[in-house]
Order: sequence, then C-alpha cells, then structure tokens
Amino acid sequence: MSNDEFVKEITNIDEDFAQWYTDIVRKAELADYTDTKGCIAIRPYGYAIWENIQSYADKKFKEAGVKNAYFPVLIPESLLEKEKDHVEGFAPEVAWVTEAGGEKLDEKLCIRPTSETIINTLYSKWLKSWKDLPFVYNQWCNVMRWEKETRPFLRSREFLWQEGHTIHETPEEAKERTIQMLEIYADVVENFLAIPVLKGLKTETEKFAGAEETYTIETMTYDGKALQSGTSHYFGQNFTVPFDVKFQNRDGKPEFAYETSWGISTRLIGGLIMAHGDNRGLKLPPKVAPVQVIIIPIAMHKEGVKEKAEGIFNSLKDKYRMDIDLRDKVSPGYKFNDCEMKGIPLRIEIGPRDIEEGKCVLVRRDNQEKISVDLAEIDERIGELLDSIQNDMFNVCKERMEKKTTVAHNLDEFKANLDKEQGFIKAMFCGDPECEAKIKELTSAKSRCIPFVKESVDDKCVCCGRAAKDLVVWARQY
Amino acid sequence: MSNDEFVKEITNIDEDFAQWYTDIVRKAELADYTDTKGCIAIRPYGYAIWENIQSYADKKFKEAGVKNAYFPVLIPESLLEKEKDHVEGFAPEVAWVTEAGGEKLDEKLCIRPTSETIINTLYSKWLKSWKDLPFVYNQWCNVMRWEKETRPFLRSREFLWQEGHTIHETPEEAKERTIQMLEIYADVVENFLAIPVLKGLKTETEKFAGAEETYTIETMTYDGKALQSGTSHYFGQNFTVPFDVKFQNRDGKPEFAYETSWGISTRLIGGLIMAHGDNRGLKLPPKVAPVQVIIIPIAMHKEGVKEKAEGIFNSLKDKYRMDIDLRDKVSPGYKFNDCEMKGIPLRIEIGPRDIEEGKCVLVRRDNQEKISVDLAEIDERIGELLDSIQNDMFNVCKERMEKKTTVAHNLDEFKANLDKEQGFIKAMFCGDPECEAKIKELTSAKSRCIPFVKESVDDKCVCCGRAAKDLVVWARQY
Repeated sequence: MSNDEFVKEITNIDEDFAQWYTDIVRKAELADYTDTKGCIAIRPYGYAIWENIQSYADKKFKEAGVKNAYFPVLIPESLLEKEKDHVEGFAPEVAWVTEAGGEKLDEKLCIRPTSETIINTLYSKWLKSWKDLPFVYNQWCNVMRWEKETRPFLRSREFLWQEGHTIHETPEEAKERTIQMLEIYADVVENFLAIPVLKGLKTETEKFAGAEETYTIETMTYDGKALQSGTSHYFGQNFTVPFDVKFQNRDGKPEFAYETSWGISTRLIGGLIMAHGDNRGLKLPPKVAPVQVIIIPIAMHKEGVKEKAEGIFNSLKDKYRMDIDLRDKVSPGYKFNDCEMKGIPLRIEIGPRDIEEGKCVLVRRDNQEKISVDLAEIDERIGELLDSIQNDMFNVCKERMEKKTTVAHNLDEFKANLDKEQGFIKAMFCGDPECEAKIKELTSAKSRCIPFVKESVDDKCVCCGRAAKDLVVWARQY
Repeated sequence: MSNDEFVKEITNIDEDFAQWYTDIVRKAELADYTDTKGCIAIRPYGYAIWENIQSYADKKFKEAGVKNAYFPVLIPESLLEKEKDHVEGFAPEVAWVTEAGGEKLDEKLCIRPTSETIINTLYSKWLKSWKDLPFVYNQWCNVMRWEKETRPFLRSREFLWQEGHTIHETPEEAKERTIQMLEIYADVVENFLAIPVLKGLKTETEKFAGAEETYTIETMTYDGKALQSGTSHYFGQNFTVPFDVKFQNRDGKPEFAYETSWGISTRLIGGLIMAHGDNRGLKLPPKVAPVQVIIIPIAMHKEGVKEKAEGIFNSLKDKYRMDIDLRDKVSPGYKFNDCEMKGIPLRIEIGPRDIEEGKCVLVRRDNQEKISVDLAEIDERIGELLDSIQNDMFNVCKERMEKKTTVAHNLDEFKANLDKEQGFIKAMFCGDPECEAKIKELTSAKSRCIPFVKESVDDKCVCCGRAAKDLVVWARQY
C-alpha cells in the first residue's frame, strides 16, 4: 500500500478539518464512541498521552505546594444552588441522580460539573485559624456537563480533568496563586505539548460562573480557530461567604477566606491533535509521545536483521520510550504508514545494507527528513533529534499563530479578515458586554482574552467607536 | 499534654474497635464525612497513601503488560441487563441518572458499580481476529454502590479503585491471567502494605455476580475479623456471549473470547488502619507512608538547634520522604503525639545535648524503641530501620493471623471458637450452598475462601457431616 492510498483513508485536512479530526481520533486509536451518548471511551494509546500530561503537570503542581485529595462525585441540589451565578451557569447542563438503591431520593444529586460547592462545605469544616491557611488542594477526576453537541476530547459529556481549589488569608495571595497556576498551565502546553499559548484575562461575559476574574491560556488550531486550553479563576469571597468558609484572622476576628480554582482537562489531547496533525495522521511532540522512537526492520527475513534491530531496541529502551514493529504479515511500507498515523516522532529503519555499512536511517515524523546515522552514534543522535523535533514543532505552531493573527480597526475589517482566513484578531474594546454580544452575532467570533502583554492598536472600540479600554484578541472557537 | 491525655482523644482500641477506627480516620485527617450521604472526602494525607498504593500497583501492572484506558461512568440500563446474574447482583444497589441537560432521559443511566457491561460493548467493536488478542486493559476510576450502611474506606457509596478487564484467545490463558493478577495483589498487600494475605478461591455463594470463578486475597484485622482486600474473576464466556465479543480464531471460525476482571480499591486504606493501628493512632509501613521520617527539634529556641535540624532534613530529603516540624507554638511532646497519630514510621529527635555529642535519637513508631545514633551514620541507620520496621510490622500481623486461626470439626466447636475470640476458622465443607447459609445464620461467619495451599483437617463437612470436599476458611467480616 503506497502512502497515497493510506492518506485516502482519512479526510484531507484542508478540505474538511472537522472530519479529518474525527478520522484521526479513530484511526490513531485515541478514542471511540460508546453506547452512552455523548461519552467517549479513551483507548490505551489516547490514555497513555493523558498519563504523560498528568505526570508532567502533577510534578509541577507538587513543586508548587499542591496536595491531591478527593471529593464526592455527587453534589446535593441544595449545595449547587448556594451561589447564584454558579447555579445559573451550571444547572442547565448537569445530570441528576434521582433514584438509588431501589428508592426515589428525597433530594436529587447532580454529578459534579465542577466541585466548588461540595469542596467549600468541607473547607468550612476544616478551616479554623489563619495559621491553617492556605489550603492548596487539587483533585484528578471525572466531571460531567450535558452538552448538546459533542466532539471527542474537545466537548464530551464526561471528561477527565484536574480541578485545583485553594483558599487564602488575603486577596493578594489568592490572586498570586491564580496567576501562578496559569503560568504552570502555560508551561505544560508550551514546553511539554509544544503548543504556543496566548495568556490573558477573560472579559466579563466570558468569565467562569461565580468568578471575579478568569484567566485563560488560548491556543490556535491548524485551521486558525481558538481553543481555550486551561483556565484559572479568582473568586474573592464569592463562595466562601455563602458556604461560611471563615477563619480567625491575625486580629482574632472572623474573616471569610479568599479563593481560587483552576483546571486543565483531556481537551488538551484534542488540542494536540488540532495543533500538530497533518494528512499522514497524528503528530506528537517527543516529550508527550507514549512511543518516542520505533524501530522498523527492513527485509526482516534476511539473516541477522531482526537480531540487529532487537539489539538496538534493547540498547536504547531504558533511555527512550521505544517500540519495535516485528509483525511479519505486513510490509515495511504499511508499518511506516501506521507509525505515522500514530504520530511517533522518530522511526529507525534498518535493513541488510545498513547493517553492512554500520548505519541506519532515522526518519523524523514532523518534517519527513531522513538522516543516515552511524550505529555507533545512534543514542546521541536520537537525543539531539528528539530535542530538535520538540523545538521545531513548537516553532511551526508559533509561526502559524503569528501569521494568522491580524488587526482590525472596525467591524468591516474584522469580518473581512475572518472571511479571508480564520485566525486571531486583535481589536480594541470598550468593555461593554453589548458590544461583545454584537461582535459575536455579526462575526461568530468570541473574545479570547485581554492579553497579559499590553498592546494598543487604536484608541476606539472596534464595535461602537467609543473610547477603548483594552486590546482584546478575538476568534472563532472549538 | 502527656501521651495519656492524647490517648484519651481516641477510643481505646480494645474497648470499641469500630469507634477507634472512626476516630483514627478523622484524627489522622485521612477522610471526612460530607453533605453527600454515604460518600466521604479523602483528605490530602489519606489521598497521599492512595497515590503511593496506585504508583506501586500501576508499575507492577505495566510490567505485566497492562495498559490503562478509560470508559464512561454512565451505563445505559439496557446494557446492565444483558447478563442475568450480573444485573441481579448489582441492580439493587445502583444510582440512576434519570434527568440531564434539563430533560427527562428516554433511558435511565446508572453510575457504574463496575464496568464489565460497557467495556464489553467496546471490546465487541475492537476485536476482530485472534491476532488482536489479548486485550489487557485497566482503568483507575470512581465507582458507586448504594450501600445501606457505610463506613469510611471500607464501605463507601462512592469509592476509588482500579478495574482490569482482559479478553483472551483461550480459557487457559484467561485463567492464568486471573491468577497472575491475584498474585500481584498479594504482592501489593504483603510487600508494600505489610499485611499478610490468605489467597484462595471463593465458594459458589460468595463469587462475583456473573463470574465462573472468583479468587480473593483476605486479610485479618486487629480484632480478628476478615477483610476481602482484592478479587480476581474468571468469566469464561459469560459476558462475551451476550455482548457478542468474538474473534476469528486460528481455524478461521468465529469464537467468543474468554474474559477476566480484577480490582483493588481505597478499601485497602481501611485495611491498613485496621491491621496496624494502635492506641496512639495510625501506624504506617515505611513503603506506603507519605512521610517516612519526621525531624522534631528539641529546645528549638536554643542556638543552632533549628539550623542543625534543617541541615539533617536537607541532607536526607532526596533519599527518604521527609518532614520537619518547626511549629513554634506547640511543645515537642505535642509534636510527638501528632506524628504518632499520623503513623509516621520513624522520628528523629535532636536537641542541644545531642548536637554537642554529635548524635540524635531515632524513635520507631511500630514499637516505640529509642535508638541513639551518631549523626555520621544517620543515613545508613535510617535505611536499616525502615527495612526493619517494614518487616517487623508484617511479622506482627502474621503472628496474629496464625494465633487467631483455629480449627473446628463441628458447629459447636465453630461457635465456641468464635465466642472465645474472633478469628479465622478452618473447617471442612461439603460444597452445598445450604450448609454455607446455615453456618452464616448460626455464627455470622462467612466463607472467606478455599485456600490455594490445600489442607485437610477432617473428612466430614463441619455443618452436615456429609463427605467434605474442601477445607474452607471462615470468619466474620468487615
């Protein structure tokens, strides 16, 4: 089977990106649909990616003083209702348990869409004095939001995530933690997943239900749309007052604590696919790839080939995440296509002539470059190449994000830019939610954030022409 | 505060073991009750124990070829009903989602009590040929069983566990996997948690709903009762037939796969408390302890003490899981009690006189032994002592289990043994479920298992006097 034939198995990325995405999810065996509508099964290859993300992020969290804990998956209705904005935001999309153990329940229980409410009831019990603070707790768990339209990883009714919930003695300390965790998310996405992020503050319209401030990291997909990839919220006392989370402060007086929450989810796997993939399939940055290097022997039936390939595998397997494809019913070409579909960053091809010359061929997944390497230098060269691939993949995305970011001074320009090509649009904003609603209605673009790096491209609002407050980045989203 | 005063804070272990258990769970900050009835919150200290268990077990699983994946938390009613014994066993204790996204659902969905049903629908899609086999997948997740009476960790409506589900080409291979995983569980519990196990086969009455065979590891609590600590099931084709999980076999004919499942849960944390704890609190084996060694400076206000303690902490912290208690508002005695309640295996006491002499005092949590150690040898001595503590804790439990295991030849003896002291009873069994029911009714003891190590103490059934088939171990249970 030639590469061309193989490509036909998946939709062309430039023809129908949405269908291409779904094809990759299934052909690379990342996830599958299930009999539970709107919920996916994450297959071992997809889950191995999630485990690597978890492992990297959890280490960073722990270095930042975060402790893991676990809270109930079910939340009584009365708790969900305690914070007005929160219940308005989440109640319409929760799933309710109304019967259990053969009986109808007195009070229905929702499956957590997020856990602020139940966690605050426990913080209220545990917190006594300023000396107990801060609580910097996190849980890795499943959550459920009954979305109407779903898409594997990006918008699934059930998804896996981590939700950190912290309480502090002062607003300053809580705000500092909000930013600290956003910076960790930026590190995960940029340095581990090789996807550049735009960091900033959400507008009033787009902030989390119940938050004072929501910070976000936004990434750009191959087709120029935005993906909200992680958020960190400052709540002030919005939850601690209704949930009575108070402490004796340094003056001996009762005071309500200041709170944050922050989360990243399996959506990041969708982000990985959409940022890096191509017509050959998935493309994984080496740091997150479950398999970093695969060995494919050529003419495996010839004497000594299999043994040599296995020897190389054994000499490298403690240093890199390695695999070797020894299937004897399929051709090397089929194996090449297979490991390209799975996005394995580097493959080693080795056949009889290579062995004679003491060489092998390394092939990069990111740019298809073939490099002939002396077997004596293979370990060193693999290390260098994996670093290069990681960096180059980041840079490809960064250049795309820069190229597809334009400026608009008025709504006509805004629409014209988007009609020409999907991308991020920098435009000034007066801060009025009505302008934001109008922009969304006319362009289908939503505000992504007010970037941390301040900038000005005009002094008037792109929508109403009144005095502008901030530069906002806008885009259509997944 | 003296040790005696501190002890008063928890119920005496020999007076009311159940209340002692609950006291430990709360005073050692392992878990707490929540507003969701029957569901606990696992606090950071308790969760750190779970993370250590996960990390040890997951490594063993992966060495045994297990791959992690994730399946939906909600299971449609029609799927649960496909296997007759399974639905009879689980339907009475599930929680049902009947409304979601603001609408009543056409078909109600249960929160997984276990995932055989949903996983088999996916195996049915993924399996084509014998060449695809085996599937050796596992998920770490939450499950829900609506128990009437709950107890933290031991029997909670929601709990965390791992459930492995494998399918194979032959019954032999599946049975081998069933035993292999049970042996890994025995390794986790014996070598990591320092609790001896009894391994064996469950009787027909006690096997898992839908299984052909259920294997178990049983541990003994401080008060001589049994705790089922891990199970591994062989299903044959019980699920693969109704769920149509078939493959093309080596003869080119369709054949249903042979299946296993196996699980351990946060119940193990309850097992740890009940096997090792005492009147001073929790007692953790070093391998699973979140903090293995804690440094408590004496006369911390004296010049150089705090610095020396911190120096020791820094020199050891990369090798052992260390903590240092530098609180200045509480006395060393209070700190001793605190770290004993938390079950920290080893503490280092260091004061001005120790520093002068170039020494410190190590105190073992398991037997209160105090050992004076040269500071120059501290690293080595800690290593040795942690090993000794791990071994000694295992041996204490092993001796208890041996001492509290008795033999009964008839029901009078059976009852007399249990009336004298709770423990395991070895007695012969004819295999008739009616005898088993009668024993349970008369003695409140249930069969634990038919041990792997075959033994015979009589040739007649302890209950009916007919010919005995197997020696069964019986006990009252948690």
